[in-house]
Amino acid sequence: MILGIDIGGSKVALALGDGEGRILGETRLGPPDPSPARALADILIEARGLLSGAGVAAPDAIGVSAPGPLDRRAGTLCGPPNLPTWRDAPVVGPLSEALGAPAYLENDANAAALAEWRFGAGRGARRLVYLTMSTGVGGGLVLDGRLYRGRGDLAGEIGHAPIEWDGALCACGLHGCLEAYVGGRAWTEHLRRVVSDETELARKAGGASGLRPEHVVAAARAGDARAKEELERFVGYLARGVVLAVVAYAPDVVVLGTIASAAGETLCFAPLREQVRARIWPAAWEDLRILPAALGARGPGLAGICAALEGLRGERETGRLGED
Amino acid sequence: MILGIDIGGSKVALALGDGEGRILGETRLGPPDPSPARALADILIEARGLLSGAGVAAPDAIGVSAPGPLDRRAGTLCGPPNLPTWRDAPVVGPLSEALGAPAYLENDANAAALAEWRFGAGRGARRLVYLTMSTGVGGGLVLDGRLYRGRGDLAGEIGHAPIEWDGALCACGLHGCLEAYVGGRAWTEHLRRVVSDETELARKAGGASGLRPEHVVAAARAGDARAKEELERFVGYLARGVVLAVVAYAPDVVVLGTIASAAGETLCFAPLREQVRARIWPAAWEDLRILPAALGARGPGLAGICAALEGLRGERETGRLGED
Repeated sequence: MILGIDIGGSKVALALGDGEGRILGETRLGPPDPSPARALADILIEARGLLSGAGVAAPDAIGVSAPGPLDRRAGTLCGPPNLPTWRDAPVVGPLSEALGAPAYLENDANAAALAEWRFGAGRGARRLVYLTMSTGVGGGLVLDGRLYRGRGDLAGEIGHAPIEWDGALCACGLHGCLEAYVGGRAWTEHLRRVVSDETELARKAGGASGLRPEHVVAAARAGDARAKEELERFVGYLARGVVLAVVAYAPDVVVLGTIASAAGETLCFAPLREQVRARIWPAAWEDLRILPAALGARGPGLAGICAALEGLRGERETGRLGED
Repeated sequence: MILGIDIGGSKVALALGDGEGRILGETRLGPPDPSPARALADILIEARGLLSGAGVAAPDAIGVSAPGPLDRRAGTLCGPPNLPTWRDAPVVGPLSEALGAPAYLENDANAAALAEWRFGAGRGARRLVYLTMSTGVGGGLVLDGRLYRGRGDLAGEIGHAPIEWDGALCACGLHGCLEAYVGGRAWTEHLRRVVSDETELARKAGGASGLRPEHVVAAARAGDARAKEELERFVGYLARGVVLAVVAYAPDVVVLGTIASAAGETLCFAPLREQVRARIWPAAWEDLRILPAALGARGPGLAGICAALEGLRGERETGRLGED
């Protein structure tokens, strides 16, 4: 049995399952304690509960999915934006020691890409690109059936590809990044700037200053013209990112999470596919699938499990913990 | 011994060598006959000459590097732009039969990427991106020590990534492709359109209508201000393509061939590196190498040899000829 743990800024998810994605038990915690040691103590209580509930003495492996930057070999988080107090915080060592099993750490977007590839929308695809639009835009790549990380785990960061040269300033400091147009934070800032308080859309959020992407999705679904306009803008920029991903990787499937999957088929995927199709070669379009993430609430736990499966695979193949 | 053959629109190169890139003999032919059968007969005469000159009865393997589109499994060319009469032309079968050795076909940009990775500027790099700017812009990827082709061999075609959304029309029919700005054909058309006949630069080409990128490189090297301006424009757009490649693949090394390598360090690589550096994350810049192709005239023959080495590797690993 594999214990998967997803550590996020707003919650922690745990799942106990096997290598085929069958879940024996899962649970969730609120935002992790700013002190990594205390947070790990909380996580261990839940983990032991899951294990004893399933009658498992110790897991075969532990996988941790967490936001980057992180040091995979050292098994530490390096102060990611959503967990700034987790700086050089050992995660793998304490968990491994406490639970008596090898533990592996993986970037959360990579782990989510692996989960959608093994168990979700991209099951069986030879090449998968995963993009998630939450606060920022994360990306993960499975190329020729293996995770591709790139130097310093930086590959696939299509969220920071320039989709508009000299374009909008991104939170990362660069200009024109995809994230500066479709990331949750950037889109929220944009909405609060451009949507008038007088609109029905703003009223639903208690004023423009309370607007979030969710309001736009809900209002567009209800037929609100102003909301549809903003969603079209979102889809238009998202198409640019997907086009870059298709040109760069020639994938079989592009899986989109969070905002895109929440917006759904009619408002997001149907127009997105048409826009992408018009901007790539017919040969690159043929058989290309552009799909919403399929794992939903089970995703984070499965991402943790996939972090362990990938760590085990890497060790098996190279005899050492994830090179580079 | 491996026989490498590079079939291009303007010439054919042959090299006989080993898996370490040691060349026993090499030769060149002019443009291949429009009839593939006659061209292959010409190639076979040269190949037999190389083999007998080296005292080799038959090669262990044959590798053919040729422009796409091609059908690797069928071993046929599919009417590439520079060899339009080579449509569904069998190449691998006749060569293999005539010389009594397995033969493998590979896209020329992929084969050149492998050659620079095995024997050239990217020797030993774990992840290499190769871009070549001749008539069009070709790309090849070696990721985690293996050729990455993508679906339909379309990965790495950074030449057709949109560096300017709704930008210049590309020969491929899309808009804003890198190739539409830095490809040899596109740049030549641009020069003939914007450079005045009255300039020193145009005079050196016998009038603006005779201008080619080589004239710009030579004149810029001699200090011509107008030529420098055009070369700066070229480098500026090239930087956009390199930035996309770095974001997408997080490579250790980016190798640039043809026009870029001809322009050299001062006019191209030094300003290019500065522009790329300003547009990517510091972590992506650190230890990144952006280098001219190193193989020069030996490149095409070695590319052919690498096509064979890659085919042999694929068969060894999968038990069948290059999947997909």
